[in-house]
Amino acid sequence: MAALSALPWFCSRPSCRCASCSTQSLKPSGGSSISSQAAVCYFSTSNQLNTKFYTDPVEAVKDIPDGATLLVGGFGLCGIPENLIGGLLKTGVKGLTAVSNNAGVDNFGLGLLLQSKQIKRMVSSYVGENAEFERQYLSGELEVELTPQGTLAERIRAGGAGIPAFYTSTGYGTLVQEGGAPIKYNTDGTVAIASHPREVREFDGRHYIMEKSITGDFALVKAWKADRAGNIIFRKTARNFNQPMCKAARKTVVEVEEIVDIGSFAPEDIHIPKIYVDRLIKGDGFEKRIEVNTKSKQKKGGDNVRERIIRRAALEFEDGMYANLGIGIPLLASNFISPDITVHLQSENGVLGLGPYPLEHEVDPDLINAGKETVTVLPGASYFSSDESFAMIRGGHIDLTMLGAMQVSKYGDLANWMIPGKMVKGMGGAMDLVSSSQTKVVVTMEHSAKGNVHKILEKCNLPLTGKQCVNRIITEKAVFDVDKKKGLTLIEIWEGLSVDDIKKSTGCDFAVSHCITKYSPLCSRSQPSYHSTQTFSL
Amino acid sequence: MAALSALPWFCSRPSCRCASCSTQSLKPSGGSSISSQAAVCYFSTSNQLNTKFYTDPVEAVKDIPDGATLLVGGFGLCGIPENLIGGLLKTGVKGLTAVSNNAGVDNFGLGLLLQSKQIKRMVSSYVGENAEFERQYLSGELEVELTPQGTLAERIRAGGAGIPAFYTSTGYGTLVQEGGAPIKYNTDGTVAIASHPREVREFDGRHYIMEKSITGDFALVKAWKADRAGNIIFRKTARNFNQPMCKAARKTVVEVEEIVDIGSFAPEDIHIPKIYVDRLIKGDGFEKRIEVNTKSKQKKGGDNVRERIIRRAALEFEDGMYANLGIGIPLLASNFISPDITVHLQSENGVLGLGPYPLEHEVDPDLINAGKETVTVLPGASYFSSDESFAMIRGGHIDLTMLGAMQVSKYGDLANWMIPGKMVKGMGGAMDLVSSSQTKVVVTMEHSAKGNVHKILEKCNLPLTGKQCVNRIITEKAVFDVDKKKGLTLIEIWEGLSVDDIKKSTGCDFAVSHCITKYSPLCSRSQPSYHSTQTFSL
Repeated sequence: MAALSALPWFCSRPSCRCASCSTQSLKPSGGSSISSQAAVCYFSTSNQLNTKFYTDPVEAVKDIPDGATLLVGGFGLCGIPENLIGGLLKTGVKGLTAVSNNAGVDNFGLGLLLQSKQIKRMVSSYVGENAEFERQYLSGELEVELTPQGTLAERIRAGGAGIPAFYTSTGYGTLVQEGGAPIKYNTDGTVAIASHPREVREFDGRHYIMEKSITGDFALVKAWKADRAGNIIFRKTARNFNQPMCKAARKTVVEVEEIVDIGSFAPEDIHIPKIYVDRLIKGDGFEKRIEVNTKSKQKKGGDNVRERIIRRAALEFEDGMYANLGIGIPLLASNFISPDITVHLQSENGVLGLGPYPLEHEVDPDLINAGKETVTVLPGASYFSSDESFAMIRGGHIDLTMLGAMQVSKYGDLANWMIPGKMVKGMGGAMDLVSSSQTKVVVTMEHSAKGNVHKILEKCNLPLTGKQCVNRIITEKAVFDVDKKKGLTLIEIWEGLSVDDIKKSTGCDFAVSHCITKYSPLCSRSQPSYHSTQTFSL
Repeated sequence: MAALSALPWFCSRPSCRCASCSTQSLKPSGGSSISSQAAVCYFSTSNQLNTKFYTDPVEAVKDIPDGATLLVGGFGLCGIPENLIGGLLKTGVKGLTAVSNNAGVDNFGLGLLLQSKQIKRMVSSYVGENAEFERQYLSGELEVELTPQGTLAERIRAGGAGIPAFYTSTGYGTLVQEGGAPIKYNTDGTVAIASHPREVREFDGRHYIMEKSITGDFALVKAWKADRAGNIIFRKTARNFNQPMCKAARKTVVEVEEIVDIGSFAPEDIHIPKIYVDRLIKGDGFEKRIEVNTKSKQKKGGDNVRERIIRRAALEFEDGMYANLGIGIPLLASNFISPDITVHLQSENGVLGLGPYPLEHEVDPDLINAGKETVTVLPGASYFSSDESFAMIRGGHIDLTMLGAMQVSKYGDLANWMIPGKMVKGMGGAMDLVSSSQTKVVVTMEHSAKGNVHKILEKCNLPLTGKQCVNRIITEKAVFDVDKKKGLTLIEIWEGLSVDDIKKSTGCDFAVSHCITKYSPLCSRSQPSYHSTQTFSL
């Protein structure tokens, strides 16, 4: 056969074993007759591409090179790949970019790799639970790229799904869109690397920003069980970011608590098909440290101001409502839901149907809420991944989100995540929670800051969490409805106060409803309800 | 209390029951003391927002108005909401836009609503399994918006997730991007409505097009079981489009085969949390018609040309590979996979781990492949939704996709879905399957068309399925490798043929590898293998 051309790219293929290229001639096993070199060229019995099983976590991660981008699963300390992180400590790989919702704590989780200075950059939504992290960031040793939690989950999901970019309303009108947030400081405290601004685009009259996908060189994932084919399942809220991360890396390394026979999982119930699992290891024991061990406690008396807000906030719940409640006053308000109604509580780390805090024997490190507190679930609850959870939130399927604020503007701008000059811990899921126009956003907060500084303002001067997103403000003095064009309307007032009192403590003008009402300490049920909702101590 | 302003928008809220606005004064039940009108304003015991249960499908759909956009689940006839479609036949609603992967058959599924002329527009990937559909489309009575199957699934997923638009490589360089495809004909055969072009954008050197999300007024969904809280699960490949559609409509109506007690599903295994389920009905019997009942048959002898291609195509499989095979030659090639290797077959309707065609007693209408053929699965298989399936495909997780072609260009352009002037049935999933640069695309086809018309060309003149996407061409005469910049290289040749013979039957020039090999009828195992793969009759 005349070789009209010899293209070097062809024969440099590592899989080409043809006689012309190599002295290696593969003889297929078995008794079939193969009469042509074609078979020798393309037939392989050795090139196993599917899941590989490991016993030593160091072996499973030892080819991760310096400078690699790692997707590391977990939410807080729940569902983190403890053994694989331990493996990295031993390989000593450096200069890592770690995409992970959180950065662990001082001496656990990714905090260990921060201590050993193996991480160059964190891409996270909420960090800084530890002192070493803060020191490294402020001294310019560590780069930190903060991204809203739902955007982080969706960017990873997009990375796995071959979507290079998408539009989201989350972060529009905030520092995320504007860019310039410090990713890295110089040693003199000036900004060495700042975040990029995002493109803005309008669809159907609403503003959205473009976010790009995230992919990793390796994903380090913690799951519950794997079968011997490599299919995996997660347990409770330990699923979180692990599920989308499985799909978004070139190599996915999964540690599990148990490896079971093929057929142990119903094919409908497999959370991650084997196609996404390159390496599997049964972890050698899991500490599963709990970040906030919250057990059912006797209700303590709250201070007067907070309790007033909590009780008024509880009146926002309607029967059948799906609600996501911020830690603090919003969650405490759920104690006062009437026993006659059912409110379904969602937590953005991937659960619908939260129950009360657990009794001592019910505490489960795989079951936490978005505040990293141990919780329980009620019958009919479901668990899902972070990308699914924020699809639910961003898609407007939650009826009510209630959260605290540092400042709210006349037209509903919200600021509650950052005070310039102070250590920034991240926006977590707050920007996502206020991003849907179909979800009612209720702010609960004290009417004024210390020294009677106004918190309800013509315009926020703190960096925003969301623009024109608040629908109602509840304080210990008043309740306002917010219209993004018309501004505030005072609809309720604390008994004993006058409209003039409210005017004095409010930093912008407001309309007053003609059907304004007063509320008092007895405006809601005085006993907490335990029916179908959480019970949280005041 | 002075009413400084009376804003009409405030008191027109339907939920406002305060004494000032209405004579209706709601007394909360129970013994708690509510001393203020505030409670009367905001406390509700009647506004149940969660899942409602129905017994009559007509009742469940009777408020669907003329002109509504419906998301209708199912793939082929698998997992379609039979009872709800029956309900619509009775309500007689008109002018519907039906977003559904297929349009049913003449007298079943959405075909029934076509017969009754209740559908104005179909948004689908593959249609025209019935004569009435074709007649209505060509006569200008029916609008048809064709969209690639994976793009359709992702647009619906985006609709549910609050993502207004995203970028995908699927459809770049095709009629989908260029626009101008006939959506509606005039009665004189000219085009009344044409498809819009898509914006093109480059990310990291690759081209993508922007696709917008799809939402519906109502989703009509078929699931397997629901619990009394409204959580639902699907069975086998009947999940398909049903899962993403649940999340993308203002009202989701689900019909199930069985309603079970709360707690029957593990919270980890719930496919659709109750939050997405507005209405539920237990269907009154399901016909579950099978579109292509394919049972295991004795292997018939194929014609010489096809068998030659099939046997050569089988040599593309490598151990551990994940492959998606088109119906016909590619799927038949899987009969010849060596028993020494394992190839995992994916089908884009939502299954990984296809097995052989079923025996008579194994036939299950809920388990089909993308060709709508009844199939089985092997141990370790998994089921997932259409959006998940195409995330797997678009994301480049499939190692090999093998499919037929009408034309292939020198630089790997592929045309296999449309002949202008002939009835267009749709691109199905083909554009998605060739859209990832990480998946090897192998075309299997006869070297020339009837009358020795060239199919391997300098440039395709048929509308493209994908641009520069083919990596290898296998015919009964030759095997070419394709480089998107350098063009074709002949790497194998059928024994008895010369390079000149190939030149004569090829419509463009090509390089010839210096290690060219010959293949013969015995170049692969002559007996089909039944190990870990499908068996399909030739």
